[in-house]
Amino acid sequence: MTPRDRIAAAKTAIAARESEIGAWTHLDWDAVDAQLTDIEAILEDQRGPLWGLPVGVKDIYDTHDFPTGEGSPIYADHRPKADAACVAVLRSAGAIILGKTVTTELAYFTQGATRHPVNPAHSPGGSSSGSAAAVAAGMVPLAVGSQTAGSVCRPASFCGVVGFKPTHGLIPLAGCKSFSPTLDTAGVFARRVAEVAVMAGAMTRNDWQGTPAEQPPKIARFGGIEREAATPAALAAVDAALDGLTVGEANRAAPFDTLGDLQLRIMRFEMRRESEWEVRTAFDQLSPAYQQLMHDGEAVSPAQYAQDCTALLHAKAAIDDLFGDAEILVQPSAPGEAPLYEDGTGDPVMNRAWTLLGLPAISIPCGIGPNGLPLGLQLAARPHRDKSLLRVAAWFEQRLAVPTA
Amino acid sequence: MTPRDRIAAAKTAIAARESEIGAWTHLDWDAVDAQLTDIEAILEDQRGPLWGLPVGVKDIYDTHDFPTGEGSPIYADHRPKADAACVAVLRSAGAIILGKTVTTELAYFTQGATRHPVNPAHSPGGSSSGSAAAVAAGMVPLAVGSQTAGSVCRPASFCGVVGFKPTHGLIPLAGCKSFSPTLDTAGVFARRVAEVAVMAGAMTRNDWQGTPAEQPPKIARFGGIEREAATPAALAAVDAALDGLTVGEANRAAPFDTLGDLQLRIMRFEMRRESEWEVRTAFDQLSPAYQQLMHDGEAVSPAQYAQDCTALLHAKAAIDDLFGDAEILVQPSAPGEAPLYEDGTGDPVMNRAWTLLGLPAISIPCGIGPNGLPLGLQLAARPHRDKSLLRVAAWFEQRLAVPTA
Repeated sequence: MTPRDRIAAAKTAIAARESEIGAWTHLDWDAVDAQLTDIEAILEDQRGPLWGLPVGVKDIYDTHDFPTGEGSPIYADHRPKADAACVAVLRSAGAIILGKTVTTELAYFTQGATRHPVNPAHSPGGSSSGSAAAVAAGMVPLAVGSQTAGSVCRPASFCGVVGFKPTHGLIPLAGCKSFSPTLDTAGVFARRVAEVAVMAGAMTRNDWQGTPAEQPPKIARFGGIEREAATPAALAAVDAALDGLTVGEANRAAPFDTLGDLQLRIMRFEMRRESEWEVRTAFDQLSPAYQQLMHDGEAVSPAQYAQDCTALLHAKAAIDDLFGDAEILVQPSAPGEAPLYEDGTGDPVMNRAWTLLGLPAISIPCGIGPNGLPLGLQLAARPHRDKSLLRVAAWFEQRLAVPTA
Repeated sequence: MTPRDRIAAAKTAIAARESEIGAWTHLDWDAVDAQLTDIEAILEDQRGPLWGLPVGVKDIYDTHDFPTGEGSPIYADHRPKADAACVAVLRSAGAIILGKTVTTELAYFTQGATRHPVNPAHSPGGSSSGSAAAVAAGMVPLAVGSQTAGSVCRPASFCGVVGFKPTHGLIPLAGCKSFSPTLDTAGVFARRVAEVAVMAGAMTRNDWQGTPAEQPPKIARFGGIEREAATPAALAAVDAALDGLTVGEANRAAPFDTLGDLQLRIMRFEMRRESEWEVRTAFDQLSPAYQQLMHDGEAVSPAQYAQDCTALLHAKAAIDDLFGDAEILVQPSAPGEAPLYEDGTGDPVMNRAWTLLGLPAISIPCGIGPNGLPLGLQLAARPHRDKSLLRVAAWFEQRLAVPTA
């Protein structure tokens, strides 16, 4: 397909399903045409690895040619001066920014208009709701999201696509709204592991393309309270994916027994702190859930936060104790299938700890649950072992015979 | 002094010296008057700790009521939608944003128009050039800067004011341009330690006000290549400040022997990465020094960067080995006095390691060098020991009998 064909295909898919799904907050075909003309003019030997591929961008990343609404009425008229660094990197790699995808309010829990692409009565998950749904609905092959608790792996799981969050800090966040800098991590969505590998590699100057791992690596279940939070269907799907493999258990002794609580306190404290402009000037334009988050953040003392930062540093430095002799950790990507839309975007309990530790993490489709909606297999590796993780994920993708469309 | 008196005094000082010093990039007395009216209306029992105090803000922090130029022609027409979180926090604490102060180009080495407040033939240092000079010239009592290598402690030292950089990550950076997220740290300038303690405390929800330490704590010289880089005058000034105290030596064995190199590689890699928009759309509007930085950043491989991130994590986790039984590390704030303006903003060699490790660090005036310009004493503590550091700095301030004006 030529870039023009790809844009035409995206336009057709969006025309067919956007009214039902609502994945996009800003579409502007003139802005797309302008990019297309530039992209077509690039000489063949100068084309980047994403040349001509349409990408959806979560509406928390600045774009010079699309508004950036942050999922909040406070930013309804916001037109950034420049692209976020990762958007500029995508363009440098040849991608075409197709539009901005729906984010929950300020990347927290209050969801936008996006509906689940398989069953619109359900939520696509959040906070990268539109990015996950747009890829799942075949509107774009690639999309950008971000994860502060579970906002890439959870919606990927719900929507039945691949969601990959590289090691914390590898994808630049200049021009992305800051929510919780200790946790905020950019991530990507696609249909296949090989696609997220090319995309995330291009965004981090890495060559993460590779063949699937030749044999299963040493794997450990993450266990802990996360395991207790998972539904039987989610656990059974992971068990089936691991069938016949020798699987150990991660070491969830201290300091790895309370990672979820640590993530929650750091997130609350930092999100309150980073949101001072919104609290100060527009508190009544924040949703009740976000207002509550602000109160919860104020309830975390600076002394507690300092203690938590120190605890996190030492947990990160001791990451080998968590993994033991395993290379890969495994758990469900979410407690189960996507909840009903009116019940919210779902629980990031399965993602908090890995986000906190900065691990590269990926969710791949792993069967269908009792409601007929996708389930996800979530894998993580030690920091900076992104390429190994991707090769193992590709191995599981083959094993699970994930359908290509 | 009433807030109105303080603004009038600032206006007078600026009228008297700004043409010579050039500390400000955006002044707007109408915007100041609008804030003054709001501040005066605050009831006495609701006034924050910075009520009515004029503050200068480095021009890399977004402000809704002043342009934000980033020290670069690329951002000449940039009007942000919102305040940076730390600017909003200052306003919530009652401060009045007097204007935007000159930053070097994109907080790197190419300096703006600001001249040294004691001798205009010299540089005020960088990158927080205008903030340091404005406080030193008595234009404002308080100013905000940032430090990625040495951009708070170095200009504070050169200009003869107090510069304080809290523990990495404590002052929010939402709405501050991202240069090198592993390193970027907000910091503050004032004339006295007690003033930076009030200001930085207000910006981090901490109570850092306190009496000076009652006795000198255990101190260690930082040593290493930093010591070799200092001029005899700078070393003599520190020696005089330590006269009669028992002073040990920090442990500069590995991994603490090559911190400066580690800081340099991480900074180059990240600044290149975060600057993709500028490189992609406006490379020819970058200075030769910034263009060279972009090339230097590309020369650091992603594999090297990953290795460096891991090395930094383990160095941070082993920080007690660096300090040994000392509570406070000490070294000159800069190699010596401020260089001539045409020779640049000076060398951050004395600051790189402490920025890298995220230590709270402070520079206080410490005598006058052979050219008649200020020298600085630089102190650091373990992360999150900001209050202890400030109390020790206040002890030294008393000992050195730093003049109040």
